[in-house]
Amino acid sequence: MRQTSPSQPHLHYREITMAMKANEARAHRGSNNDLTDVAGIRVGHYQRSDDGWLTGTTVVVPPPGTVGSVDVRGGGPSTRETDALSPTTLVDQVHAVCLSGGSSYGLAAASGVMDCLAERSIGFPVGPESHMVVPIVPAACLFDIVGRGNFHQRPDASFGRAAFEAATSQPVAQGNVGAGTGGLAGFLKGGLGSASVVLPNGVTVAALAAVNCGGNVVNLATGELYGAAFGLGDEFAHVVAPSPEDCARARDALDESRPRNTVLVVVATDADLTKSEACRVSMAAHDGLARAITPVHCLTDGDVVFTLATQQVPLSDGHVRSLSADRVRELDAVMAAGANAVTRAVVHAVLSATSAAGWPSYFDRYPSALRVL
Amino acid sequence: MRQTSPSQPHLHYREITMAMKANEARAHRGSNNDLTDVAGIRVGHYQRSDDGWLTGTTVVVPPPGTVGSVDVRGGGPSTRETDALSPTTLVDQVHAVCLSGGSSYGLAAASGVMDCLAERSIGFPVGPESHMVVPIVPAACLFDIVGRGNFHQRPDASFGRAAFEAATSQPVAQGNVGAGTGGLAGFLKGGLGSASVVLPNGVTVAALAAVNCGGNVVNLATGELYGAAFGLGDEFAHVVAPSPEDCARARDALDESRPRNTVLVVVATDADLTKSEACRVSMAAHDGLARAITPVHCLTDGDVVFTLATQQVPLSDGHVRSLSADRVRELDAVMAAGANAVTRAVVHAVLSATSAAGWPSYFDRYPSALRVL
Repeated sequence: MRQTSPSQPHLHYREITMAMKANEARAHRGSNNDLTDVAGIRVGHYQRSDDGWLTGTTVVVPPPGTVGSVDVRGGGPSTRETDALSPTTLVDQVHAVCLSGGSSYGLAAASGVMDCLAERSIGFPVGPESHMVVPIVPAACLFDIVGRGNFHQRPDASFGRAAFEAATSQPVAQGNVGAGTGGLAGFLKGGLGSASVVLPNGVTVAALAAVNCGGNVVNLATGELYGAAFGLGDEFAHVVAPSPEDCARARDALDESRPRNTVLVVVATDADLTKSEACRVSMAAHDGLARAITPVHCLTDGDVVFTLATQQVPLSDGHVRSLSADRVRELDAVMAAGANAVTRAVVHAVLSATSAAGWPSYFDRYPSALRVL
Repeated sequence: MRQTSPSQPHLHYREITMAMKANEARAHRGSNNDLTDVAGIRVGHYQRSDDGWLTGTTVVVPPPGTVGSVDVRGGGPSTRETDALSPTTLVDQVHAVCLSGGSSYGLAAASGVMDCLAERSIGFPVGPESHMVVPIVPAACLFDIVGRGNFHQRPDASFGRAAFEAATSQPVAQGNVGAGTGGLAGFLKGGLGSASVVLPNGVTVAALAAVNCGGNVVNLATGELYGAAFGLGDEFAHVVAPSPEDCARARDALDESRPRNTVLVVVATDADLTKSEACRVSMAAHDGLARAITPVHCLTDGDVVFTLATQQVPLSDGHVRSLSADRVRELDAVMAAGANAVTRAVVHAVLSATSAAGWPSYFDRYPSALRVL
């Protein structure tokens, strides 16, 4: 039987380009321009930068019923509970995501988050009593234990607990905070950043990135941030091309010698994504890293994107078991918005970071890049 | 026992940035600036654009002993033999790669390639006699069967045979040829492109791309090709920013209505990559698509990257079963070069394509972008 249903996902370019034009013209940043613009999402940081410390933990706590998945693209990942987020496995709800410094040692922070959730009887139910739960807390770490703080001072369960308890829906603190505390960005100080977009159909998509990348976020020839071209509206209007003198000085300083790698990302949306759809959003979000960082996804990078979908805004045809053309179009918009939010979050991470441990911030390295108003 | 071997892969930023600077300064395009710069690689096209046809097939024939793998990132892939290229499976040598138009129907072209190889007793040996072989011919297709040629006229086994028999180490024909014959690039005519780089250590990395993407290769605001910024030396010096008038006209024409998707890529290198390493190179190469095309890796895209490693140039420590720091550094350079070669191949595909079936080429759409010398 020939199938002629208009719900088949054969997309037309007019629709794609019109939707893109409409999205570009009518999309806007959320009120906080960060992950908390997705209703119910809370973000908490804990960090130490005193007494030999320069590391921390960020916990993202979604509302009940949030579905999550992940895509790992780095060649040197440090993760836990990512197999449980595979589209083929049992669990589809996520109770918190824990990002940390401390290399794989920092995975211990997730245990503190699990304890907090278990005390509240929040988790995957595994027995007849309400406290019999296993909280699903996917986690990933970045490598900040050489060339910054003391090698032996790294996040443990107490960091996860403190970050969880600090979680709030207030605007996300950015820069040298949480998992970004010890982060670098090529030859600059990195950190934690976030960004959001509200699409014309009302769906919110946001990203949070803890940036510790080995690749460059800056075009060394011009001093411009690769990702700044992807700003929404006047988002990066305060950043201009730096002077040739600043660029030359920056290139001359390229002989630092401390290792770094990895960008840890959480994308969140209020759309009603399935676990498989959330996985696909994670996959597309890595394109946002490629546009902000060159090179990226190297062998020593642990780049990972978690995607959380809070299920509050239904996309089309969520009751249909196969994808309809309308849902494909809406999902593609979420995927593209997620990738762009990741790019913008990386830029915010770099712009918000402050010089530390001998690593200059972007504006300290390129003072002429700050537009004087 | 504490391990202090200097072969552990802890990379330092000085090494990375110095290597990057050296690569940028001392890398150069191969003599053909295409896939055939990897010694022993032959490329053949067959296409038809007469009498209702607008499609074709491209076959890449590597030298004996070539190891291959793949990474599929599109949401709507059309492939065969990709599972055999998983790093965990038996086969690691690839005898040819077959790229076609024709959507999944075009996978039939690979059967013609298999026949050609089997006639020459080339393949994975499966029996006591020399003709008892199974040629390994991974294949992927793009969607060019609506809005271009006739829906029912698509590549079959004869296309694979003809493309195989046309394979040569001469410079690769580009534009509306082979698998790129019916390809589009957003609102422009797409096609087939290729590019290469010779790294300072003598390793050659090259890419070939059949471009039929739904995302834009052009920044609609400026008319500039996203990927042109990644040109090596004066590679794209003949392309300049088009006039505001051309840009306005191009934006007004954005109401075409024919579907397209997918970029099919082959990366090739003469390095002695294992199957796992070739898989990792494929993964990184998708970053090259992200930099050339926005958005990419959507649900209706079948984006796929095959990587072929001809084993002629040994990287460091190939005899060591775990990765040494030297080998990691060299692999990362191959990965970054592969991604950039993909970006550049996409640009060549777009610049080489000629207007067809009502789809304008880049220079027909933006005539002012061609530098008058």
